This record gives sequence, C-alpha cells and structure tokens, in this order.
Amino acid sequence: MAEKRIFNFNAGPAALPLPVLEEIQSSFLNFNGSGMSITEISHRSPWFDQVINDAVERTKRLLNLDDRFHVLFVQGGASLQFAMAPMNFLTDGRSADFVNTGTWSTKAINEAKILNKEYSVAASSEDRNFCYIPKDISFNPDAAYVHITSNNTIKGTQWHTFPDTNGVPIMADMSSDFMSRPLDMDKFGMIYAGAQKNIGPSGVCMVIIRKDMLDMATDEIPSMLRYSTYAAKNSMYNTPPCFGIYTIQLVLKWLEETVGGLEKMEAHNQAKGKLLYDLIDNSDFYRATADKDSRSLMNVTFRLPTEELEKLFVEKAAEKGLGGLKGHRSVGGCRASIYNAATMEAVQALVEFMESFAKEN
Amino acid sequence: MAEKRIFNFNAGPAALPLPVLEEIQSSFLNFNGSGMSITEISHRSPWFDQVINDAVERTKRLLNLDDRFHVLFVQGGASLQFAMAPMNFLTDGRSADFVNTGTWSTKAINEAKILNKEYSVAASSEDRNFCYIPKDISFNPDAAYVHITSNNTIKGTQWHTFPDTNGVPIMADMSSDFMSRPLDMDKFGMIYAGAQKNIGPSGVCMVIIRKDMLDMATDEIPSMLRYSTYAAKNSMYNTPPCFGIYTIQLVLKWLEETVGGLEKMEAHNQAKGKLLYDLIDNSDFYRATADKDSRSLMNVTFRLPTEELEKLFVEKAAEKGLGGLKGHRSVGGCRASIYNAATMEAVQALVEFMESFAKEN
Repeated sequence: MAEKRIFNFNAGPAALPLPVLEEIQSSFLNFNGSGMSITEISHRSPWFDQVINDAVERTKRLLNLDDRFHVLFVQGGASLQFAMAPMNFLTDGRSADFVNTGTWSTKAINEAKILNKEYSVAASSEDRNFCYIPKDISFNPDAAYVHITSNNTIKGTQWHTFPDTNGVPIMADMSSDFMSRPLDMDKFGMIYAGAQKNIGPSGVCMVIIRKDMLDMATDEIPSMLRYSTYAAKNSMYNTPPCFGIYTIQLVLKWLEETVGGLEKMEAHNQAKGKLLYDLIDNSDFYRATADKDSRSLMNVTFRLPTEELEKLFVEKAAEKGLGGLKGHRSVGGCRASIYNAATMEAVQALVEFMESFAKEN
Repeated sequence: MAEKRIFNFNAGPAALPLPVLEEIQSSFLNFNGSGMSITEISHRSPWFDQVINDAVERTKRLLNLDDRFHVLFVQGGASLQFAMAPMNFLTDGRSADFVNTGTWSTKAINEAKILNKEYSVAASSEDRNFCYIPKDISFNPDAAYVHITSNNTIKGTQWHTFPDTNGVPIMADMSSDFMSRPLDMDKFGMIYAGAQKNIGPSGVCMVIIRKDMLDMATDEIPSMLRYSTYAAKNSMYNTPPCFGIYTIQLVLKWLEETVGGLEKMEAHNQAKGKLLYDLIDNSDFYRATADKDSRSLMNVTFRLPTEELEKLFVEKAAEKGLGGLKGHRSVGGCRASIYNAATMEAVQALVEFMESFAKEN
C-alpha cells in the first residue's frame, strides 16, 4: 500500500499531470457551479459545450492547425481506427501504403487485410526485430495515404523526421507521442491518438483530419464508423465520453498555460530522455534495445545482463516507489515510459536508482 | 452558480449515487493504495483486474446470470451497437425483426439498412407518435433475433412485460432502464446498455451476450467490432475505458450492498414513479404524454397547458435547484428522468414544486 503517490513509468494508461488530477478531484461533486459532477451533466448543456469547444480550440492553437483541419473525439481507441481508416478511405479499389515498425503497425495492417482492402507494406523493420525506423522508402504515388506509427511503445522506437511521400497524405497513429512535440501539419492528412499516454485517460481517441481526407471518405458505412458523422456534429452525434474529453481539456490547458506550448514540451522531453539514455550509454550494465537514431523519447527500452536481474530491478524499483518499469510482456526487458507528465524529478529519481542498482549488482 | 448539488433530472448523462461520487473523489489521487489515480493505472495490473472482475461478478449476481452469459464492456455507446449487432449476426441472409418504438429503435433499424442487411419491422407505434408499446405482435420464427428498445427516453414509454417470440432470442437496447428491475434472462440473447443513465458515466456500453449468440456471429469483420474479441479477452483486447468501468463497479456495489438488489431497486423506482404520475393524473394542469399501460418509470414525460408555461416551468424549477426538466428537443414539453440514482427526496421536491407551480399559474 503506497501512502503517497509513486513515480509512475507506466506505458499507458500513464501518469497525468498532478495539477490536472487535483482540479478534477476538487470539482468532482460540483462542476463549474452546475451543482452536478462532470459525470452527471448533459452533453447538450452549455457546461459541456464549453469543455469540448475549449479542447478543440486548444488543440488547434497548440498544433497551429489551419481551417482545413477538424478535431474529433472518437471512442474505441487506436484499435478501432485501424479498421475505421480503411473502411472510410479504401473504397473503389484505392490502396494504402503501410510502414511496419512493430506490433501496432502490424495490427493496423491486419485490419485492412480482414476488410479485404488493397494495401502494400512499403517498408518494414521486421528483419531486425523492429529495433529501427526504416529510411529511404519509396511510396506508391497513387496511394490514398501512407500509414505510420509515429512511436512504438513496445520496441522503443520513434520517427524523428517524417518521410517524404511525394504529396501522398501521411496518416499517423500518434497514440504514444501526440502533443509531445510540434508538428509540421502540411505532411499529415490524418492523425489519431488514443488519449491514455500523453493527453488523458483511456476511452477516448483524438482524430485530426484534413478536409480533403473527409471528402474522400465513403458514406456507405455505419454512422458511428464514418469520420463525417463526427465532423458534422462536433463529435456529439451520440453521447461522447464526457469525462475523458474533460480530462483532455485540462491536460491541454496545462500544456498551453503551465508548460508553455509544444516547443517547451519537446525541450523538456529531450532533457528527460538525454538523462536516461546518457546513463545507459555510459554503462556496461544497461543496454538500450533500439538503434540510436530511432530511439523513442517516450519509451526508453533497455536490458540488464540477465533476466533474473531484470526481475529484481523491477521489484526493487517498486519498493522505492518507482512503478511500471517492466517491459511489455511480448518482449521482456525493462521500459521507462516518460511521457509529457513524467516529471524531471521522477526521471532523476530513476537515474539515481539505476546507478545504485548497477553498482550493487 | 450552484453552491451545492442540485436535484438532477437529466435524461443522460444523469445523476449518479452520491456515495459513489464521493468514493471516486476521495481516492482519486491514490487508488486502492497503488500510489496512482484510477486514470493512471495499467489495465494489465492486479488493481484493474480486481475492478473489472468485480464489475462482471456483481452483474452476474444482480441479474442471476448463469454460465451461458458473457458480460462485456464496449466503447461507442448504444449507437455503435446499432451497427455491431447486424454486422455480427445478420450474415448468410439471416434476418432480424425490429419493433419500432421511436427514435432509438428507428436509428437501430437505419443502421441495418445502411449495412444492406435483411430485416423486417414486425411492429411500430409510429401511428400515434410512439406514445405506446405495441402488443400482440407476430414475429418471424426464423429471425436471428428480435430487437426492441426496452425504454424510450424521449417518448417516455417502457416495455413492462417482454413479448413472446416463440424462442427467437430478444436483443434489447436497455440503455435507459438497465439494472432498474430484475429480468427473466431466459428471453434474452443479448442486452446492451450505454452506461450514462443508470450505471455510470458516458463512454462505456455494457453488453450481456449468450453463448449461442456468440456462436452465431461471424469472424469476418474488424476485430474491434466482433463480440467474440471482447468475450475472449475479458473486454481487454485493447485498453478499455478504465474510469468508466471503475465507476460502474462502484454503482453495482451500491446497488448490491446499499440498495439491496434489483427487487428493492424496482420497488423504489415504482414508488418514485407513482408519486409523479399520481400528481399528473390528478391534475388538470399537467398531462402525461404516454399511454397509461406503456408509461416509463425512468422518464416521466408531460405537457403543460401552453409552451410558454412549459418554458417558465423549466426556468422556475432551475431556480429552485431542480435541473434537467426540459423535454427532448425533438418533442418539446417537459421530462423528469428518475433513474436509479434519483432519490425519493428529489422526487418529493419536484412534486412539491409542480403542485405550487400549478396553483400559481
């Protein structure tokens, strides 16, 4: 039983900014003078309109989105997006190009396959167990879109520059690094991101979609699976996940007003990552698993000399109040997820623990 | 600005039991000694396993479910179920029978139509603006299922006994009266319910599905749209809506341990409904909109002599701390939603207000 809050390195659901959690807590029985909890107010009320509209406006300001872009809130996580995207866009024989950088890309490809859609895998890093991001890829100039996973939580890889696709819109699953850095939005036709890493709780997925992508989408699929349904109704065709959108709104407010925007967030994330990777690179005890030029600033994956030591590492860390350091069950090893809300204090505590654990073992 | 909590008659999202909200609030920064918020813990942790398993077990006990039934948590609300059900079950030319009792049934029918599935409308109450529940319906004995909406929030109607379908499984959208009364589960092949009326916040939909329905479902549709995906993975194929499931778990605990089960909940709901309907029936000022034998115990819909008086009624009620009494925008009038969490105290306060408003106007 932890009497106080731990340093949380979970891969997702993950740490949220403490001031956001405190605000949710303090107004939980009476939201904004409504006399109701945020979980009890109507989504058709001025109270909730203010929440969702503020979340949309902050997203537009943080990412410098122009009027071509719609900001949507969809349920079902990135996993539903894996199916919704091909259902909407891959009609009339149109094809998509995928870059396969591991588990999540593989799942996205699999859903296109289940749907009997046209697609190609333009590049893959499977030859070396997905430990790098492919370079110099040639894409199909007629593809409807190029699908990438911007950050792989399991293999600890991240795209640091986005590929040149000769004008074909990039569709990026940014579930694990959305809002961690500024983006050049000219490259993207669509971005989607399950909230539970950088921007909120599980149960809501943000979708940013450009008008020309919306225009390409079919209307001959179920209402809840059409992006146009969400775009036409400000994400309120049916009752949206109100609590999740409210939490996102507060996280975006924290990003804008406390952190000071995405340039500052990126610098902070780079500083945290450098601390950890420098320790690993200067150590004979720890070994990073991803290629240097492909390393993730969100999920730092590493190995210890033996699996027994890895198990002990995770146990001893937990005793010191450092939680969530076990690698994904599919790959083993260790992983420190240091999303936006992971503080420098938490990373410093982890670095100190790692140094002393290496000395003692 | 309400300094204290109001009496909340919203149709959904709706009032939740105050002890549940207080428990969420008090443990919001440190859930169950984890040192993390419920919004920050991993869905693959023992903390969350305990939450979801307890929610499933309580559902089984409350509804006396035997081992044939799976209890699932799905995102997308009832609106996604309108599409998922025909996608899963209406393959190989199989057909469904629908009973149309208003907006939500109509939407469910429309999604089957978008999907080019076989279906029939076995009965409808559209001839009198959906103010009653159809009786003496003859169903297609070869239908895959019979779809009904057990309670209509907009028209204020409710099925008080479920139809004889000659063994064809009933599929019921119970979004607005789930867990408000005991059920004879032998009649049902599937029940689904968006949580935001009787059992939790928006953003999670409960699905109870019988094994023979699961066996009938196709596997040739996207993973996130297959019931079998949820059944195989205890609703955790991908990250589930953890906060919503947690809130549901607490509401079910309240239903079992504080209320004392669904027989007691039903008696309480009948007493609340009687108070309101008796006042309306004994009044020349208020007029109930649904036929007596079809009236909902969840949503009491009524009219006043003029639209001006209805507007004034809603305004004056809000001034007295009685919120959410405006009828749905599609029908006008007034509506008091008195789900499980609406207290007798709230209903008595409303009755007193209605009596004095009638006298004064």
